[in-house]
Amino acid sequence: MDKIGFFRDLAIIFLSAKVMGLLAQKLKAPQVVGEILAGLIIGPSVFGWVGQSDFLSMMAEIGVILLMFGAGIETNMRDLLKTGPKALLIACIGVLVPLGGGTLLYGAFYGFGAVGSDKFLSAIFIGTIMTATSVGITVQTLKELGRLKGHIGTLITSAAIIDDVIGIIVLTFVIGFKNPESHPMDVVLHTGLFILFSFAVGFACYYLFKFIDKRWPHQRRIPILGLALCMFLAYAAEKYFGIADITGAYVAGLILCSLHDSNYIARKIDISSYMMFGPVFFASIGLKTQFGGFTAELLGFSVCFVLVALLTKIIGCGITARLMKYSWRDSTKVGVGMMTRGEVALIVSQKGLSVGMMDSKFFASVILLIIVSSVATPIILKLLYHGEPPEESETGAPVAVPEAPKA
Amino acid sequence: MDKIGFFRDLAIIFLSAKVMGLLAQKLKAPQVVGEILAGLIIGPSVFGWVGQSDFLSMMAEIGVILLMFGAGIETNMRDLLKTGPKALLIACIGVLVPLGGGTLLYGAFYGFGAVGSDKFLSAIFIGTIMTATSVGITVQTLKELGRLKGHIGTLITSAAIIDDVIGIIVLTFVIGFKNPESHPMDVVLHTGLFILFSFAVGFACYYLFKFIDKRWPHQRRIPILGLALCMFLAYAAEKYFGIADITGAYVAGLILCSLHDSNYIARKIDISSYMMFGPVFFASIGLKTQFGGFTAELLGFSVCFVLVALLTKIIGCGITARLMKYSWRDSTKVGVGMMTRGEVALIVSQKGLSVGMMDSKFFASVILLIIVSSVATPIILKLLYHGEPPEESETGAPVAVPEAPKA
Repeated sequence: MDKIGFFRDLAIIFLSAKVMGLLAQKLKAPQVVGEILAGLIIGPSVFGWVGQSDFLSMMAEIGVILLMFGAGIETNMRDLLKTGPKALLIACIGVLVPLGGGTLLYGAFYGFGAVGSDKFLSAIFIGTIMTATSVGITVQTLKELGRLKGHIGTLITSAAIIDDVIGIIVLTFVIGFKNPESHPMDVVLHTGLFILFSFAVGFACYYLFKFIDKRWPHQRRIPILGLALCMFLAYAAEKYFGIADITGAYVAGLILCSLHDSNYIARKIDISSYMMFGPVFFASIGLKTQFGGFTAELLGFSVCFVLVALLTKIIGCGITARLMKYSWRDSTKVGVGMMTRGEVALIVSQKGLSVGMMDSKFFASVILLIIVSSVATPIILKLLYHGEPPEESETGAPVAVPEAPKA
Repeated sequence: MDKIGFFRDLAIIFLSAKVMGLLAQKLKAPQVVGEILAGLIIGPSVFGWVGQSDFLSMMAEIGVILLMFGAGIETNMRDLLKTGPKALLIACIGVLVPLGGGTLLYGAFYGFGAVGSDKFLSAIFIGTIMTATSVGITVQTLKELGRLKGHIGTLITSAAIIDDVIGIIVLTFVIGFKNPESHPMDVVLHTGLFILFSFAVGFACYYLFKFIDKRWPHQRRIPILGLALCMFLAYAAEKYFGIADITGAYVAGLILCSLHDSNYIARKIDISSYMMFGPVFFASIGLKTQFGGFTAELLGFSVCFVLVALLTKIIGCGITARLMKYSWRDSTKVGVGMMTRGEVALIVSQKGLSVGMMDSKFFASVILLIIVSSVATPIILKLLYHGEPPEESETGAPVAVPEAPKA
């Protein structure tokens, strides 16, 4: 890439994402669907105007970090505490059902192996790929619909965050079968340490920010220092605890969500996000896609793979929510909100490839899953929320549904 | 660098830039001085916590692009047309005087050579390095002081942009002495074509944006499409016409400066800029610095080099302004505003090294010049503006001096 080629890439992404986003809006779909499709169109799958690059990957990573940080900031802490145990249960069942479903699917196509055999491990690995939800697109959709702060929005977001952590634990256990150097208990320990670390940093930073906020309310230093905290926790989570960076960013948001100026921070982050990093993140989902290499058999498997992955998540999370007395409609929202898969599924696949538990041909199936779930989730969520009155939060405070952002 | 090391780098930059910026403010200096010093402190010169990386360079480049785009948008077109011819003259004289000064300085230290000899070319190259102003820091300072939109602010900004173009023409002519493959007239031709191209794109885009703005006022699509235009012109300027990318970004700003929603665009750009890209740009000036390799003789030369570079710019631009009936104080502002040197000086030096017209030891002098001018310019400008009443613009409309931004 020539030295300033990234300006060209960004110009194309901003223009196409906005145009396609507006087109999607015209067709009554969420804008984010248009932005993802824009990435597909300008990327190698169709026109090939923009390729993947390290720079765009980093910009996209900042994009999803900002999204999760924003979701954390907009959380109502009391709602979160109330939904926490429910979210934990939803996340657990929502990991187990796809894990089982994926394993069975592989067996149905390629035969079942004895427990512990290579075939068995390959099967269970296909299930593992299906476990991790990718919450960025759901968060953006809920935001567009003005529902992120609602009870169901909080439930989905926190369940998806927990789901990420469980997904990593499952991955480490599964790899542990094959690779004796993997220490599953270490992951559990690290997760525990991360929670302790978050509380320690959280308390210290909360009081520090509260002091700054009281002394210098509504000044630029607050969002900027908040952003520094977000970046730091994203880094620390992944680097020192092996937890996904988005979890760190979400925790940073939670630390700041009870500040007086939390809305002020959220607005600044939101602007940085939708002006530059958001479009790059959503378009990059399409950019990473490269179809091809589908044999008829693989295509059949991939279609089933996508169906199983989506349905097991909807059923696992949805039924759990329904058992906890949510209405059918709300339970479906939870299931659909959790069904999106993204980068994490790709990362897990890469891991499986490198330890020899997965054949590279299945990458095509994973990419198909990412694209289908990324496009379908926002559309179905919008339909499910259609015509509903504004929610009340757990604490009885009415949750304002802000005007749809002017796009 | 590990995959997510950039989060750590960004966290350190945001935190240190803000803290040092506030400290500078406490000491009555502009914040931007603190941000540059923050880069020095966290960079290889002192603690070495953050190193240069491609990613940070690209973020910094976006930072300066956004600054110039913002400066373009905040321009009053009538003021610009009125100051244009004056700015052209200031830029010309402001290039010639340092060119002569640098040539003489080299001769004084290392002896004069006959016209056309290698020694003569080396001397004239030292002068060439001194020609190009780097306007980003001046723009940010004027913005902090609420003076960017004023008459002098417009004069400095437009002169600095013209100065960039002239600097490139001079560079090509000088290299042409040594390298027959360099075609100076091509550069002049390209510059002319770029001006034509800017007018063509400008008219088309102006009417397009005016239509969008009228139909959907105050909606996100306007700043986002504006940003796409900025990136596109920055790219096109450098890629197809050999003109600096910041010139393209400034032109993009000028195209949009007469829109109803120009303030709305400027605000969104400003937020993206000060939240992330601005601090990275200013800190990166310090990050790129690595002192060392100074012999006593080189140190003596470097100090004289810095003095000559700063004084010739102040004298060249200042006297020209004074001859055009500006007050002594305003003339000094113009001279000081134009004396900052930055990346362009480094790029010119690199070019000189590659064609064998410059010895690599002089890099240290150039870096010293960049640091001294970057730190001194904002401080002196602030002193020069101290206690002045708000200006009136050329057209008689009072120029609002906005409240100092809350930092």
